[in-house]
Amino acid sequence: MQDHHYDERIAALRRQLETCGCDAFFSVDPADNAYLTGFFGSTSAVLVTPHTARLLCDFRYQEQAASLNSGIEVVTCSGNLDARLGEHLRDSGAPRAAFDPGAITVARHDTVKTAFTGETVPTAEMCRKLREIKEPSEVERVRAASQLAEAALEQVLSSLKCGMCEYELAASLEYEFRKRGAQRASFDTIVLFGARSSLPHGMPGPNPLKTGDIVLIDCGCVLDGYCSDLTRTFVFGRIPGDWFADIYECVRQAQDNALKAVASGVSARSVDDAARAFIAAAGHGDQFGHGTGHGVGLEIHESPRLSALSEAVLEAGMVVTVEPGIYLPGQGGVRIEDLLVVTENGCDVLTETPKELRILQV
Amino acid sequence: MQDHHYDERIAALRRQLETCGCDAFFSVDPADNAYLTGFFGSTSAVLVTPHTARLLCDFRYQEQAASLNSGIEVVTCSGNLDARLGEHLRDSGAPRAAFDPGAITVARHDTVKTAFTGETVPTAEMCRKLREIKEPSEVERVRAASQLAEAALEQVLSSLKCGMCEYELAASLEYEFRKRGAQRASFDTIVLFGARSSLPHGMPGPNPLKTGDIVLIDCGCVLDGYCSDLTRTFVFGRIPGDWFADIYECVRQAQDNALKAVASGVSARSVDDAARAFIAAAGHGDQFGHGTGHGVGLEIHESPRLSALSEAVLEAGMVVTVEPGIYLPGQGGVRIEDLLVVTENGCDVLTETPKELRILQV
Repeated sequence: MQDHHYDERIAALRRQLETCGCDAFFSVDPADNAYLTGFFGSTSAVLVTPHTARLLCDFRYQEQAASLNSGIEVVTCSGNLDARLGEHLRDSGAPRAAFDPGAITVARHDTVKTAFTGETVPTAEMCRKLREIKEPSEVERVRAASQLAEAALEQVLSSLKCGMCEYELAASLEYEFRKRGAQRASFDTIVLFGARSSLPHGMPGPNPLKTGDIVLIDCGCVLDGYCSDLTRTFVFGRIPGDWFADIYECVRQAQDNALKAVASGVSARSVDDAARAFIAAAGHGDQFGHGTGHGVGLEIHESPRLSALSEAVLEAGMVVTVEPGIYLPGQGGVRIEDLLVVTENGCDVLTETPKELRILQV
Repeated sequence: MQDHHYDERIAALRRQLETCGCDAFFSVDPADNAYLTGFFGSTSAVLVTPHTARLLCDFRYQEQAASLNSGIEVVTCSGNLDARLGEHLRDSGAPRAAFDPGAITVARHDTVKTAFTGETVPTAEMCRKLREIKEPSEVERVRAASQLAEAALEQVLSSLKCGMCEYELAASLEYEFRKRGAQRASFDTIVLFGARSSLPHGMPGPNPLKTGDIVLIDCGCVLDGYCSDLTRTFVFGRIPGDWFADIYECVRQAQDNALKAVASGVSARSVDDAARAFIAAAGHGDQFGHGTGHGVGLEIHESPRLSALSEAVLEAGMVVTVEPGIYLPGQGGVRIEDLLVVTENGCDVLTETPKELRILQV
């Protein structure tokens, strides 16, 4: 049975083509191509015109592409896929072909242009714009990925022991993801103990867990093509000090403020500000140097961004993270992150793991 | 203590700048930036001029970047990193700045050019060209990653059981990688049973292992920043038929022929041909539709490519895979892959796992 989501997505793309006065759209981006066709291989090209929708792939993916149920025409190519795409564009007769300049390298674009002598029109975020608003079935996939990751997290927390190191815990967590059917971690799992929790994007290392350590875990998985993202900060055995309880409570409140600020029609910037202003008022503004959140879907980082620089306005159906943090170098850090779907009047938080400061049993 | 490899790499890059008549090099590519500076974050920019070498990163990586021992100047930026890079380029006064068009998107290049009004000169594979030839310490890192993956593979093979499904085996293998200290799998582990082994890039699914199944495993890990890559095809309990023994022996011999063809000064194409001609002579030419191999290092797929279309000439110090295969749709497939380092007169095979057809115990 053919999946009609793909028909609707390609129809929406064709409406965008009319808007920008173009006769074709091309993409070599794996996530855009998965969205438009259901094909999840690492290498492919998509060409959409008012009357055709075609997926180009190479021999390695021939059998996989043949089993797609999106109704797209599949062409297996040999040699350079970008060159073949240029030839298909040329043969389509389209004078103006739209593409997303954020989703193709300068070199690959040049190769496409070798055969295609029409105009290529950079049109920011065509397919990415469509991908921002999730269909209900997409929201359910993100929710399922989130629930899987949360169940895996509970499992590994129950087996925490003194002396276990950061990368062992990360390994166990990713193993639980995979055993439960996830395709992979949606990004390199972050597990940081003690003072190392002040590294906003640190890598798990060999240092062992001790009583009184902060335990910061930022993780997610990919299930059925869709990503999840979750951060919680715990303590092991006991709270390391009042300073920690203070920054934990500050981040928890800031995160709650940001969640309350979310609704359709609200600027992404104002959600960022709801968290940032609270943290700044507590005197930690300089220790929260990253954005408050980002879109999540086929990719772990999608538009919109929730930051002070974002121009985005939230719309119902967007799935985004809200993840403020405070990082004190040499002491430790706290980050709390939920996934949510924007609704008309607020949001539906997909993450279910509690946010009260939790003391893990030694 | 400062690591002098980085000085030497930046000196080599500066010699390339002279060759192409440029005054600066810029990069936003994580692997190129790791090579030049030792910084392994997901987002960074590097700017090299005849007298400066600078890494731009954002707040999230500030503490990590500060601990680099490559002697590079680290600048923490806020806002759009590509815009900041353009400003640093402008302030450098360089009239001509070289960049790799294969390692930056059209949109990011446009952003760099907003502030930088000099000329950006696409110069294919500057840093990538340097990365092709591995230093002895890099070869040892790839070897260590390969040995780790091979030990993990032996471990999971010893625990294979009837009814275990493809993704469980993939999960176990990746868990073994991580427990042994690998940072992650170097790509999505491929585990395919039975007729599904004919999918050259299939994804592990829920189908259970049965006696007489083919077991194709293509896997690798990242250790200390460097990737490994390994494929073996086994049978579980018994050989499914003479046809399988025949294609196995054909691939094994083709792979051996290709290994024997490797040496410094030899064309990558001729190595591909050594495998391809043998498989074609056996009547399976149409069932070997991918290239024979690729470079491996900081990334799992690097130049040079070993294919019929490759223009590359092998040089001592290149680390590449040799991985011919035969795929019979609906029946099954065989792929055998080793990692090797090219030497003056041949090659040093890094992979140690035997290649005789192995019947795994039920």
